Amino acid sequence: MKVLKPEHIARLLIRCPDGPGIVASVTTFLKNHGANITDLQQHSTDPEGGKFFMRLEFQTPHLDLSKHKLEETFKQEVAQLFKMDYEFHYALPFKRMAVLVSLHDHCLLEILWRWSRGELALEIPFIISNHKELEHFAQHFKVPFHYIPVEKDRKIEAEQEILNLCKERVDGIILARYMQILSKDFVEQYPSKIINIHHSFLPAFVGANPYQQAYDKGVKLIGATAHYVTEDLDMGPIIAQDVALVTHRDSPYTLKELGRNVERNVLAKALDYHLDDKIIVDGNKTVIFD
Amino acid sequence: MKVLKPEHIARLLIRCPDGPGIVASVTTFLKNHGANITDLQQHSTDPEGGKFFMRLEFQTPHLDLSKHKLEETFKQEVAQLFKMDYEFHYALPFKRMAVLVSLHDHCLLEILWRWSRGELALEIPFIISNHKELEHFAQHFKVPFHYIPVEKDRKIEAEQEILNLCKERVDGIILARYMQILSKDFVEQYPSKIINIHHSFLPAFVGANPYQQAYDKGVKLIGATAHYVTEDLDMGPIIAQDVALVTHRDSPYTLKELGRNVERNVLAKALDYHLDDKIIVDGNKTVIFD
Amino acid sequence: MKVLKPEHIARLLIRCPDGPGIVASVTTFLKNHGANITDLQQHSTDPEGGKFFMRLEFQTPHLDLSKHKLEETFKQEVAQLFKMDYEFHYALPFKRMAVLVSLHDHCLLEILWRWSRGELALEIPFIISNHKELEHFAQHFKVPFHYIPVEKDRKIEAEQEILNLCKERVDGIILARYMQILSKDFVEQYPSKIINIHHSFLPAFVGANPYQQAYDKGVKLIGATAHYVTEDLDMGPIIAQDVALVTHRDSPYTLKELGRNVERNVLAKALDYHLDDKIIVDGNKTVIFD
Amino acid sequence: MKVLKPEHIARLLIRCPDGPGIVASVTTFLKNHGANITDLQQHSTDPEGGKFFMRLEFQTPHLDLSKHKLEETFKQEVAQLFKMDYEFHYALPFKRMAVLVSLHDHCLLEILWRWSRGELALEIPFIISNHKELEHFAQHFKVPFHYIPVEKDRKIEAEQEILNLCKERVDGIILARYMQILSKDFVEQYPSKIINIHHSFLPAFVGANPYQQAYDKGVKLIGATAHYVTEDLDMGPIIAQDVALVTHRDSPYTLKELGRNVERNVLAKALDYHLDDKIIVDGNKTVIFD
Repeated sequence: MKVLKPEHIARLLIRCPDGPGIVASVTTFLKNHGANITDLQQHSTDPEGGKFFMRLEFQTPHLDLSKHKLEETFKQEVAQLFKMDYEFHYALPFKRMAVLVSLHDHCLLEILWRWSRGELALEIPFIISNHKELEHFAQHFKVPFHYIPVEKDRKIEAEQEILNLCKERVDGIILARYMQILSKDFVEQYPSKIINIHHSFLPAFVGANPYQQAYDKGVKLIGATAHYVTEDLDMGPIIAQDVALVTHRDSPYTLKELGRNVERNVLAKALDYHLDDKIIVDGNKTVIFD
Repeated sequence: MKVLKPEHIARLLIRCPDGPGIVASVTTFLKNHGANITDLQQHSTDPEGGKFFMRLEFQTPHLDLSKHKLEETFKQEVAQLFKMDYEFHYALPFKRMAVLVSLHDHCLLEILWRWSRGELALEIPFIISNHKELEHFAQHFKVPFHYIPVEKDRKIEAEQEILNLCKERVDGIILARYMQILSKDFVEQYPSKIINIHHSFLPAFVGANPYQQAYDKGVKLIGATAHYVTEDLDMGPIIAQDVALVTHRDSPYTLKELGRNVERNVLAKALDYHLDDKIIVDGNKTVIFD
Repeated sequence: MKVLKPEHIARLLIRCPDGPGIVASVTTFLKNHGANITDLQQHSTDPEGGKFFMRLEFQTPHLDLSKHKLEETFKQEVAQLFKMDYEFHYALPFKRMAVLVSLHDHCLLEILWRWSRGELALEIPFIISNHKELEHFAQHFKVPFHYIPVEKDRKIEAEQEILNLCKERVDGIILARYMQILSKDFVEQYPSKIINIHHSFLPAFVGANPYQQAYDKGVKLIGATAHYVTEDLDMGPIIAQDVALVTHRDSPYTLKELGRNVERNVLAKALDYHLDDKIIVDGNKTVIFD
Repeated sequence: MKVLKPEHIARLLIRCPDGPGIVASVTTFLKNHGANITDLQQHSTDPEGGKFFMRLEFQTPHLDLSKHKLEETFKQEVAQLFKMDYEFHYALPFKRMAVLVSLHDHCLLEILWRWSRGELALEIPFIISNHKELEHFAQHFKVPFHYIPVEKDRKIEAEQEILNLCKERVDGIILARYMQILSKDFVEQYPSKIINIHHSFLPAFVGANPYQQAYDKGVKLIGATAHYVTEDLDMGPIIAQDVALVTHRDSPYTLKELGRNVERNVLAKALDYHLDDKIIVDGNKTVIFD
C-alpha cells in the first residue's frame, strides 16, 4: 500500500499561459534534480491560447540540491520561460490555521475530531470566538482558546486583536460558522487562505438566514458552500458544495438540523483540498485536482 | 404482491384548517360507504391553528353509492363541516396531458419512453412543437404531432391555436423544454396543471442560459427544477429538484450534457407525483405525499 | 411552526392482517377519547389477504382516561377485533440506550454530539467498552463509563456483567462499532432493540474486514448498514444503508476514512427512526414510516 | 472553450513497474516529436516497487513522423526501457461496438439516444438480439438489426453466428441486458472489450433475479454494476456502480422500475470511460482516469 512519508512530500502548483512543452520541461527539470514524481494532474482551458494549470507531487529525499536552491533554479530555468505563477509546498510542516467560530459547534467539532484522528494535515495554533460557549471543546482537544468579543462599537479593535494573534503564527483561517463579517483590510492579508462555510447552495440564498429563505421558497433541496473569502460577502471562489433532500415536513428548525450535516462535510472536504494543496484559484473560480 | 386494479382506485385530497376529528370523520365516512382505504398520509403545519393536508387512496368496488353521489354526500356531511378544499380523483381514466417541446429532445423522449412502458399513468393526446425537428419521435411512438410555429408577430395567435387544441381535450400540459413563455391568460386556464422543467437549481440562475450562468459562477453542482407554472416566470411551486456534481473541467457544453440527465429525471419524478395525485399546492409551495 | 410538547406526544404502532375498517376504527377510537391525531401513515402489503402496518402520532392532553386505561380499552375494543400486534409509545420519558463501543471513536462521538445538542430523543445511562481508550469522550459529555474487558477465557462473564448493568436500566443497546459478537442468549433479551452498524453494504462483504474485501474486489462504492441485531451475525432486519463513491486511488486505509462518514450518518439515521418509534419489524425486514 | 478536433486527438495508456523518470521520459519523447500533451493523469500503487499507470492525451497535427512510426519509435526508445504495457489510441475513427440485447429496452434506447446526439464517441455497426421485439428501435435510429435466436439446442451455433458477424467488424461488444451467457471461448476473443450491465450492486446478489433477491433481503438501496466480461460470470473488473434508495413500499416490480434508471446511467457512464480510453485494467480491477 502507498505509504509515503510526509517529510518527503513536496508539491508544485503552476498556472501559466498554455503552450507546447510545459509538462516535459517541468518533469524533466524535476527528474534531473532527483525528484520522483508520484502524482501529476493538469488542466487546460484551451490548448490554443488558453490557461494551463498543473499540480505535481514529488518525493524529495534524493534531491541533488536544497529545497531553496531547487525553487530558485526552477524559477530561472523553467518558470520564467513559460511565464508561470507557481508555488512550491511541502507536506511538512503542516499548515497552521486558526479556527474562528461563534456559537454553532458542529463545524468546529468536526474539524477538531478529524484533526485529532490525524485525518487533516493541519496544525491548529488556537481557536478564536466572540463567545465563550464553545471553550470546553477547545479544552477537551487541548487547543488554546481566545475569547474576543465583538461589540458593536469595537468591531475594528476586535479585528485588530485577531490580526495580532494571527500575525506570523498562522498560514490561514477557517471560518467555522463565525458570524461576524471581516473587513476588506483583514481579508486582503490572507488571499485565498480564509475558508468560509456558507449555509446555502450559493448563489441561491445569499445573505442572512438562508434556511428561512429556503423554507419560504419551498425548495426540495438545501445546500452548503465552502469558499475562499474575498471582500465580496458570500461571493469568493467556490471550493465545494453539496445538498440534502428536504420535504414539506421540514420546518426551518429541521432544515438547520439537516443543514448542519451538509455544512460540516462540505467544510471538511474543502479544508482537505486546501491542506493538500489541491486548489489553484482562477479568478472567481477554483481548479481542484482531487 | 400489491396488485391493485386501476379501475378501482380513487384518491381524495384534502386541505383545511387543522382541528380534532378530521381523520376519524373522513375515514369513518369512507368506511360507512364501503370504501377500503389502502393508503393515507397527512400533514399538519401546526396542530393548533395550522393547516391540515391529507391524501387518501381507497378502493371503490364495494361503494354503496355512485361516485358522483359519494362526492356529493361527502361535501354535505364532511367537507362543509371542516371547511375543506378537496378533490376526488380516479386512477382511471388516465390524465390526458399535452406535451409541448421545442428543439431539445431529452425530456420528450424520456416521457415517451416511460409512457410507452406503462410507467406513467398518462394519456398523451398530442405533442405540440414550435419546430418540426422532433416530429419523428412522435411518429415512432404513434402520438399525433402539431407544428405551431411561434414567430415574433404572431405569438398571441400561436397561443390561441394551442389553447384551441387543448380545450376539453387535455387535463394539463407538460413543458418538456418548450422555450416559449406562456401568457398569464394561458396559464390561468390550467392552474397547478402545467408542469415545467427549468434547467437550474431554482432560485439560483433564474432566466436565460442557466448553464452559462453556472459556468461563469464556478459552482460545483448543477441542478434542475420541476415546478407548476404560474404567471411569474420560473417562480411557481417547486415539485422536485436534483443536482449533479461538476468540476472545473466542465465547459458550458458538458454542463448541458450532464444537465440533460438531471432534467429528464426530475421532470419524470414530478410528473409521476402529479399523475398519481400526490401533490397538494399550498400557496407557493407543494405538499407531496410520496 | 409545529412545536409539539414532547410530554403530550404518544405513538401507536400496529401490525395486523389487512381488512376493511381498520383506519376508521382506530382513528374513531382515539378521537372519542380525546386524542388528536397529528400524524398517520399506513402500509399494506396487499389489500386482499396481506399484512397491514400503521403508525399514528397523537396528542394526549385532552384524553378522557389515563394512558394505562386507554391502552387497556384499545386492546378490548379495537385490537382484539382486528388481531393486532400493537405498541403504545410515549415521547417521554426518552428511551434509555446503552452505547457499546470498542476502539473506533467516530460512531460514539457522533451519537454523543447529536445527543448533546438535543437532536436525539435519547437518554444514555452509560457507555460500556472493552477498552479504556475512549473514556475521555464519556467524561467530556458527562456520561458514566464502564470498562468491561473481554478476554478470550471470560467472554461469558463479560457478557453477564454487561447484562447486569443493563437490566432494568436500559430499553435498548447501540453497538457503535463494538467489535465483540453477542451471544444468542444476550440478543434474545432485547429483540428489535439492539442496533448495530456494519461497515459494508450488506449483504455484500459479510464478516470481518469488509473494507479490505471491498478493496480486493475493486468496487466503486463502499457502504454501511444499520440493522437490528438477531442471532444471525450481520443478518438482522436492515434499517438504513448508504454508500460513498470510491476510486482506484483509494487504499484500504482511505476506504476506512471515507467509510467512517457513511457509518456514523447511517447509524444516526437508524437511531433516529428507532427513537421516534418509526420502525415496525416485519420478519427479516423493516417497515419505516419516515 | 476547449474545442479539440477529434481527428487530432491521440491517447497513450501505460502500465509498468513504478520507478523514477517515467513521466519525464514519456513527456519529453512526445514533445520532441511535436505532440502537444493536453491531459495527463497517473496513478501509482506504491512509489517503491509498485505498479505505475498513466494516461496521456495529446495532439497529433504537428507530429514529425507518422503515427505508425511514432508508435514504433516509442516502443524502442521508451517502452522497452521501462518494461511498459502500452496502447496508443486515436479518437478517430470511433470505436465500433455491437450492441447485444434481449427484451429489456431501456439500456438499448439510452445508448441509441446518447449516440444519436453525438454524446458517445461510438459507431454502432449493428444490433443483435435473440428476440424481435426491439427491432423497431433499431429501425428508428437506422441501425442494422440481426435476429439470432438462441434455442437451447443451438447455443453454440448462435454464438458462432454472432462471432461471424462481429469478426473484423467490431472493436468490442455492449451487453445491454443480453440475457444469454457467453462462452469462455467467445469472451476470450474480446478481452476487456465486452461491457456488461448487471442489475445489482455486485458482489451482492450475484446470479439470477437480483431484484427479487434484494426484495427478499429487505435492503434499502438497490444498485447496478457495469463491468468487463470475463469467463467468470458477474465477476469481471468493475467499471462503474451506482445505487438508488428504496423503501418497504417497493415491490419487486417497482424495484425493477427504479433499477432501470440506475442501470442505463451506469452503463452509459462505463461506456463513456471505455470509448474515451480512460480505463486501464489491473488484474480484476480497473484504474479509471476520469
